[in-house]
Amino acid sequence: MRTSNYLLSTQKETPAEAEVISHQLMIRAGMIRKLASGLYTWLPSGLRVLNKVADIVREEMNRAGAVEVLMPVVQPADLWQESGRWDEYGPELLRVKDRQQRDFVLGPTHEEVITSLVRTEVNSYKQLPLNLYQIQTKFRDEVRPRFGIMRGREFTMKDAYSFHLDDSCLAKTYEVMYDTYCRIFERMGLDYRAVIADSGAIGGSVSHEFHVLAASGEDAIAFSDSSGYAANVEMAPAPVADAQVSSGAPVTTATKDSNTSLDAFYSAQGKQANQALTVTVVKGHSDDDAETWVALVLRADHTLNSVKAEKLESVAAPLTIASEEKATQLLGCNPLSANPLECKLPVVADYSAAALADFICGAGTADTYLINANWQEQPATADLRNVEAGDASPDGEGALEIKRGIEVGHIFQLGDKYSQAMNCGVLSETGKHQTLTMGCYGIGVSRIVAAAIEQNHDKFGIIWPDPIAPFKVALIPMNMHKSQRIKDTAEAIYQQLTDLGVEVLFDDRKERPGVMFNDMELIGVPHSIVIGERNLDNQQVEYKNRRSGEKQLLDVDAVSEFVRAL
Amino acid sequence: MRTSNYLLSTQKETPAEAEVISHQLMIRAGMIRKLASGLYTWLPSGLRVLNKVADIVREEMNRAGAVEVLMPVVQPADLWQESGRWDEYGPELLRVKDRQQRDFVLGPTHEEVITSLVRTEVNSYKQLPLNLYQIQTKFRDEVRPRFGIMRGREFTMKDAYSFHLDDSCLAKTYEVMYDTYCRIFERMGLDYRAVIADSGAIGGSVSHEFHVLAASGEDAIAFSDSSGYAANVEMAPAPVADAQVSSGAPVTTATKDSNTSLDAFYSAQGKQANQALTVTVVKGHSDDDAETWVALVLRADHTLNSVKAEKLESVAAPLTIASEEKATQLLGCNPLSANPLECKLPVVADYSAAALADFICGAGTADTYLINANWQEQPATADLRNVEAGDASPDGEGALEIKRGIEVGHIFQLGDKYSQAMNCGVLSETGKHQTLTMGCYGIGVSRIVAAAIEQNHDKFGIIWPDPIAPFKVALIPMNMHKSQRIKDTAEAIYQQLTDLGVEVLFDDRKERPGVMFNDMELIGVPHSIVIGERNLDNQQVEYKNRRSGEKQLLDVDAVSEFVRAL
Repeated sequence: MRTSNYLLSTQKETPAEAEVISHQLMIRAGMIRKLASGLYTWLPSGLRVLNKVADIVREEMNRAGAVEVLMPVVQPADLWQESGRWDEYGPELLRVKDRQQRDFVLGPTHEEVITSLVRTEVNSYKQLPLNLYQIQTKFRDEVRPRFGIMRGREFTMKDAYSFHLDDSCLAKTYEVMYDTYCRIFERMGLDYRAVIADSGAIGGSVSHEFHVLAASGEDAIAFSDSSGYAANVEMAPAPVADAQVSSGAPVTTATKDSNTSLDAFYSAQGKQANQALTVTVVKGHSDDDAETWVALVLRADHTLNSVKAEKLESVAAPLTIASEEKATQLLGCNPLSANPLECKLPVVADYSAAALADFICGAGTADTYLINANWQEQPATADLRNVEAGDASPDGEGALEIKRGIEVGHIFQLGDKYSQAMNCGVLSETGKHQTLTMGCYGIGVSRIVAAAIEQNHDKFGIIWPDPIAPFKVALIPMNMHKSQRIKDTAEAIYQQLTDLGVEVLFDDRKERPGVMFNDMELIGVPHSIVIGERNLDNQQVEYKNRRSGEKQLLDVDAVSEFVRAL
Repeated sequence: MRTSNYLLSTQKETPAEAEVISHQLMIRAGMIRKLASGLYTWLPSGLRVLNKVADIVREEMNRAGAVEVLMPVVQPADLWQESGRWDEYGPELLRVKDRQQRDFVLGPTHEEVITSLVRTEVNSYKQLPLNLYQIQTKFRDEVRPRFGIMRGREFTMKDAYSFHLDDSCLAKTYEVMYDTYCRIFERMGLDYRAVIADSGAIGGSVSHEFHVLAASGEDAIAFSDSSGYAANVEMAPAPVADAQVSSGAPVTTATKDSNTSLDAFYSAQGKQANQALTVTVVKGHSDDDAETWVALVLRADHTLNSVKAEKLESVAAPLTIASEEKATQLLGCNPLSANPLECKLPVVADYSAAALADFICGAGTADTYLINANWQEQPATADLRNVEAGDASPDGEGALEIKRGIEVGHIFQLGDKYSQAMNCGVLSETGKHQTLTMGCYGIGVSRIVAAAIEQNHDKFGIIWPDPIAPFKVALIPMNMHKSQRIKDTAEAIYQQLTDLGVEVLFDDRKERPGVMFNDMELIGVPHSIVIGERNLDNQQVEYKNRRSGEKQLLDVDAVSEFVRAL
């Protein structure tokens, strides 16, 4: 590709509205342009990467025995009414009426459509198992689209759905998909982790997420420093702490000055946050829908894990934390100083909180605290906190580390949530009607592009891994328009590399070399060949590696062979 | 691909709702399934063809120097308001509101989005010309979706838009696109014609359509039997007829019995339809919007061409033909018997009608006709009729033939319709602001799949041209599940062909041979290899060509080489 025929569209300025580096670089490198909130046009350099990502996903899905289909973007509402999600799904589901005033949705996902397809097309156990996927445009009307295509409204997703007679067959395909996802992210040259995940609103039991590791990631993931264990922090169980024994020190009270921080107050009492308790009031769950509230007690150095909390029988999902005003009213004092030992609400204590002795906690009066308090009777306990770096790994091997990740894939053992609601079954080998069990497997194809940039960039721009780079080689002739031999050499190398099937971006603009270097670094082309007068005197050109910065001189005649070997 | 892992979904019965053969065969061969009116899921066999078509289009667009982008399906209404099409476009434009109650449309086409992109990204004449394209999902809310994906609501289109400083540059790119389209349809193995076309509502001057020839085509196209001339019948100019000279025979009148057909009546008068005139009343156009009507006069053997008629200054566009009641009221008698020589409305006569002498025409009283009438004074004339087989070709070379075609591509020299309305220009070499001139180039990617079937089928099913076939080879082992050597031979051939990169559909189902033959013929796999006991006794298998029906025996060892040579 010659830049003169191309839409390069690079820009120097960092766009003000772009909060994360991938969004900034995608705009600066001419990969995307905003059309409206959460809606982006993919410019040529962006689309080349997107298509490479999609091609790798497609190749590996095919290799894994999945079969590609293509379902419509626009879906009839009646299927969503049948599954129950017409009512369940919030305003992220964009509902539209056609010219006949019939209801449709723009598909945010395709469980309903695929289940309705399979219930008509698959009638016999002989046709199973079946794994169908598509790479397709999805729409979610996000309340706050942000980070460019990382959380856009229209995006490209690979979604696969597998259908099985029983759960053991589902588990096998799930494992194949797990391995396939690993191969996909490995082939893309990304540093990723598969982690145990919550199956959340989609339903089902077993679930894993795939995260591209990046400091800017929205998710925290915990993994063992000694084994393969990795889980979303949402899901990683915290170790059960050994019960401490009270020293028998007398219980005293102390009053905290409103100018003193809690940590400073603990310190003044000869304690630390890991020897203090805090109370959080959350909405409770009761079978008769009566309003109930629950007091969750954690160690002051720990953070509440909402996914764990909302799985408690006595707590309502999704987790609702009481406002300070509401909590004060329920507890009889500000929650900071609430006394977990004499609480007006049912108490559930985190394991670590229940294990403490001689701790600090609220005395039930504003700003007053008990020092060296102890549980009089053992409270109800549960795992309520986020794990932290240094916690023992749940598999018993080593300690946990915490990293940030960007979720780019999610696989679920769905079970019969959709097949039951939509009556999707077959005749089994014994002639009985049998409801199918399902898996579903998503990859955020467009999101991968942003995640790869979050993980691969420097102050000059993007550093693409070779397999998903928009071009493999940038060909940069300096002042070609003034020198016939530079032009001839550039054209010859361009021809040779193109004949080899190498994707070359040939910068044939009448621009200063500095402009050309900056653009190619910004776009992130992994390999550059620079043609200049001085080196050409020795029949040489300069090679530069975008990632390592390594430079070396190559004989003009050796360029093809060098690039082929890369 | 093994059928046991695949979703074959063939069916024997012809679906009742499918009116055209391509729709019937696409359902029977398991290529598509209807989700809702005009909305189809592409099953694996359909999608394989669709992807092949898209790949050929992409390769040839890239070769022609066009650059791929991807614009959103969902477009903000403000761009459509800016171009004026928010008001102009009818209910085919599906309008939606997002959760913030902002107006959007589902894109039926992308002129607005691309023009808005180019006006921000392209600022200098140095960046021109530029040809941007996408292969993308479009939505048109057709009032009567029909013929399966031939006229669906959601469909896949390749749309390209080129931008130029001047019309001569536009004309050059237009020519490149013309040649590219020819190469695309040739590569697909389709019998097609490029024809001169009406640019219609899209605007602009020069325009060509590309038609796949098929008896079931919705369009009639006229082409010379001696030159390269070809045009949509809408656009082909009819030859100007030489004026006939009256024989001086006396004018008489005759009354037609209501049981007699017009042709029989002409015959009884010693005349034919080509010696008679008919009157059609259409809505007129006036600058002050007053209601006016015009009488169009044609030879009785000719048909009115609405595109030609609505281009007349005195006729309203789109063409509106008066109801019989309205015409009777305006003419003072039934239009069949209206007298064009003494008409109450302004008359425009087709050239052939104006050239007649001694003709039959209405006498101005119901069922009464003049015999041997002649024009007293020359009427206003125009080209109003559709050309017919045998008419002289407009380029003066040979005679016209008429064939039916399915429109699969359309290219336009748009001019500045959008760039003017949306203020899309650049600084020219002399530093002046210059509005760009545009071309646009569409291909109905999904429609090609249906058109190819209309052109390539027999009573057994589809006959794919090799380049767009879902599989190249069907491998059919007879009773494999009972014979180990058949199974071994089939597996070995499957492995060899797959290693060669050949796409093979290996029918490993436990089905009777007849079922397998029928399915493979229905799906239209171009080449079959049948493995049976008898031939295997001689170390042979049978090859069958789907199109020619030709069969031949191949040595088992020679299969790879034979397939490679195909």
